[in-house]
Amino acid sequence: MPWPAHGANPRALYEQCGLKPPDQYIDFSVNTNPYALPPSAWPTGEDWARWASEYPDPEAKALKEKVAERERIRPEQVLVTNGAVEAVYLLAAMFAGRRVGVLEPAFSEYRRASLAYGCEVTSLMAEESRGFLPDLDEAAAWVAEREAVFLCHPNNPTGTVLSKGDLHALIAAAHRAGTYIIVDEAFYPFWCGGFTAVRWLDCYPRLIVLRSLTKIYHLAGARLGYVAADEAVIASLRKRQPPWSVSRVAQQLGLRFMEMESFAVWTKERIAAERERVFRSLPLNRYRVLPSAVNFYLLRPLSGRTMELFWHLLERGIVPRHTMNFPGLDGRYLRFAVKTQVENDQLLEALAGWDG
Amino acid sequence: MPWPAHGANPRALYEQCGLKPPDQYIDFSVNTNPYALPPSAWPTGEDWARWASEYPDPEAKALKEKVAERERIRPEQVLVTNGAVEAVYLLAAMFAGRRVGVLEPAFSEYRRASLAYGCEVTSLMAEESRGFLPDLDEAAAWVAEREAVFLCHPNNPTGTVLSKGDLHALIAAAHRAGTYIIVDEAFYPFWCGGFTAVRWLDCYPRLIVLRSLTKIYHLAGARLGYVAADEAVIASLRKRQPPWSVSRVAQQLGLRFMEMESFAVWTKERIAAERERVFRSLPLNRYRVLPSAVNFYLLRPLSGRTMELFWHLLERGIVPRHTMNFPGLDGRYLRFAVKTQVENDQLLEALAGWDG
Repeated sequence: MPWPAHGANPRALYEQCGLKPPDQYIDFSVNTNPYALPPSAWPTGEDWARWASEYPDPEAKALKEKVAERERIRPEQVLVTNGAVEAVYLLAAMFAGRRVGVLEPAFSEYRRASLAYGCEVTSLMAEESRGFLPDLDEAAAWVAEREAVFLCHPNNPTGTVLSKGDLHALIAAAHRAGTYIIVDEAFYPFWCGGFTAVRWLDCYPRLIVLRSLTKIYHLAGARLGYVAADEAVIASLRKRQPPWSVSRVAQQLGLRFMEMESFAVWTKERIAAERERVFRSLPLNRYRVLPSAVNFYLLRPLSGRTMELFWHLLERGIVPRHTMNFPGLDGRYLRFAVKTQVENDQLLEALAGWDG
Repeated sequence: MPWPAHGANPRALYEQCGLKPPDQYIDFSVNTNPYALPPSAWPTGEDWARWASEYPDPEAKALKEKVAERERIRPEQVLVTNGAVEAVYLLAAMFAGRRVGVLEPAFSEYRRASLAYGCEVTSLMAEESRGFLPDLDEAAAWVAEREAVFLCHPNNPTGTVLSKGDLHALIAAAHRAGTYIIVDEAFYPFWCGGFTAVRWLDCYPRLIVLRSLTKIYHLAGARLGYVAADEAVIASLRKRQPPWSVSRVAQQLGLRFMEMESFAVWTKERIAAERERVFRSLPLNRYRVLPSAVNFYLLRPLSGRTMELFWHLLERGIVPRHTMNFPGLDGRYLRFAVKTQVENDQLLEALAGWDG
């Protein structure tokens, strides 16, 4: 069967698996915030209708300024995008036909976008034996041989992070070689005690940082992200971005929700605690789980019968993310989002009850 | 001063003109439906929040099928886009570096997008003396010399249309020469008694039709459009389109509003009647107006003092669209949307009261 390219679409997955979707299921394949916004956070019906009706500010000026203020950079270093993934495609267009590298396993759109724009794409595969973290010397040498490299950090699908020193060393190696380095920080808002490459923007004009507001702020359906980079990079991306690419709905919700700093902080702390609780509760004589810094993790049965587990869970209304289209994982692991306590308990129960 | 590239942003225009925006103004620079949807047409607060939160269907399957059904084509001939303008950029990426033609004066994004993707862009300028309609023989020969041409039909900013025979002849000339011809029908929903190039898709594999749902259905802030074309063209555009490019909000609103066929028909009839009323009421000894098939029109003072008129109107809270960035118009005309009767009367009054 053709595996779906992404999670977050359980109905399509059940359909492709030839299974009838159960009445109730829990989508562990979607990496968004499991905790609801307070209902008062959402706008009134009148606001919604006005935001859907009126043209967006094509410059997204207010949002750009808010992001710049929060990140302590200049508005000229910000491009607001239709989800972080629009930035991936604008970058691929900017690097069209050139030598692009992807540190794998990683989000599949870096490769897809780069191929769509005729880039020559090569991967540096992090080894499972190293916890899917790259060998730093090897990575630095490899980065230097490419014109642009994509690095997902914290990494999707593994949930791993580099040390601050290692990330900086890679960015510095890219700088010395004249290589653009794209650090996709889509999951940064879920990383307790995390650090961001944004701080180094002023030193490294070829450093490009991506962010998503989609996942933490319940905006997966409205779409909102941004790029932080040198002004010249922003200008180059901007000229290929369609006007009004970021809807007024997304801009207005973003402005509103970015005020809710305590909700964001509370979320990431709560998720970290819940993730560690799940890890402690797993029957580790039968499953291996990868340490994760964020709101999802990789798991596999020690028996090696991953796909049997996948079907077992699907039939019980638990929807994992397969890893068939992540080079280096090739289906051996399943990815699970950290959800609410009740939901995680259902997963734990289903895992405990599987004798494969 | 740097003229804004688009209308629909009166605050930015007043600011760039160094004027304080009046408390009340009427935006004649925005070409959207002036008649409100019935309040019951909008979704509930719960629906809005869910649509903003949950990932969109990356295939926009339901909407694609609805469009296909309405246009009597196959779903494989449809690509749903983030406004029609996303399609313009995907097309420019597809034609990157090639010889692209634009029938001018026309929507400025064809040129901007094509230049962003390194195309060699040339214009065929329709003459004012011919009512801004191209000479057919000249246009057919010119089309044959390009690899892709953009034609806006009904045309923005002039509001003009070709005869069915002439449009067909141009498309056939493109076909014979192996030229892709893009017919942007963004304003088709406002054209009473209009015809569409979609009917000819099965005969001409290099014909590409663009549509907007933004303007008729009050979705300028949510963004929704589509491409109708041969399957091979759709597949080529699709691979460069970021996943989830069309928000769930836009997909759901589109599905909902496309049911409101009578609202759409009523709108275009009402606008046609109102446009003709405005034309009959203009002091034609002082103004020239161009015949228009749609919901906007070009107007200039016979005195030639267009920019004085522009300032006069702005100061009175009437916001026209300048035409500085339309080659062939170069500011000599102003473009006005057809608005509601009360609003149009205010424009008529301000025009009657200007002695320039």
